[in-house]
Amino acid sequence: MTNKEIEEGTSFTPRFDASGLISAIVADENSGEILMLAHMNADALKRTIETREAWFWSRSRETLWRKGETSGNSLRVSAMKVDCDQDAVLLSVTVEGDGKTCHTGRRSCFYRSVALGGGKQPLTFAE
Amino acid sequence: MTNKEIEEGTSFTPRFDASGLISAIVADENSGEILMLAHMNADALKRTIETREAWFWSRSRETLWRKGETSGNSLRVSAMKVDCDQDAVLLSVTVEGDGKTCHTGRRSCFYRSVALGGGKQPLTFAE
Repeated sequence: MTNKEIEEGTSFTPRFDASGLISAIVADENSGEILMLAHMNADALKRTIETREAWFWSRSRETLWRKGETSGNSLRVSAMKVDCDQDAVLLSVTVEGDGKTCHTGRRSCFYRSVALGGGKQPLTFAE
Repeated sequence: MTNKEIEEGTSFTPRFDASGLISAIVADENSGEILMLAHMNADALKRTIETREAWFWSRSRETLWRKGETSGNSLRVSAMKVDCDQDAVLLSVTVEGDGKTCHTGRRSCFYRSVALGGGKQPLTFAE
C-alpha cells in the first residue's frame, strides 16, 4: 500500500508499530479536553470499534483491558478519527461512573505543567 | 523511583519506552484542536523545552527533526503538560507559516473519521 493510499484512500488500514500498537488520544466529546493517552493493539481497536467502549493494551501489565472495568469509569466512544499515516487515533468520549479518567482520581491524566525555557537541572514542574 | 513519586512528585522524569521515546500530542493553544501526534526521544524533548519550538524523533526516517524546518510551519510551544506516568506530553502550540500542521496540506492530521459499530470488513471511513 502506497503512502498516497494510506493518506487519501477510503480504507481504514491501521499501521501498527514494531510492538503491534497504535497510539490512542482520548478527548472529552463536549469540551475537547485531553483526558489520557493509551495504546491499542489490533484486538483492542477491533473491540472498541465494535462495542463503542474503549479497550486498550497495557504495555506495563501486558494485557488487554477495558477502561473502567475496575473503576467503573468506562469510556463511551462517540467518534474516532485517524491521522494521516494511520498510526494514531483520536477518540471522542463520555466518561461514565464518576467522570474521572486518571487512576490517580483526577479528571485528566495531564495535570502537571512542565517548566519551559530550560537549562535547569533537574527539570521541575511549573508553578 | 516509585509510582507515587512519578505521579505525585515535583520532578519531571520522563519514562521513555523500549525505543527511547515518549508520545507527544500537539494541540492548538487557543481552540484546543488536536493537530498531530508524534514522538520525542530525550534529545527532542530537551530541545523543545529549551527553545520552545517543537522537535520530534521520526520513527520512519530515524532522525531528529524540527517541525517546520522544511515547510516553515514551525510549532511555537506555549505550554507542555505531562501525564500521570510521565510517558506522554501534551503541547499547546501556535502553528507558524501558513498554519497547516499536516504534511498533506491540512490543518490537522486527524481529518478522517472511522465508522464505528463495526463488523464490516474491510473497515472504511465514515461519511
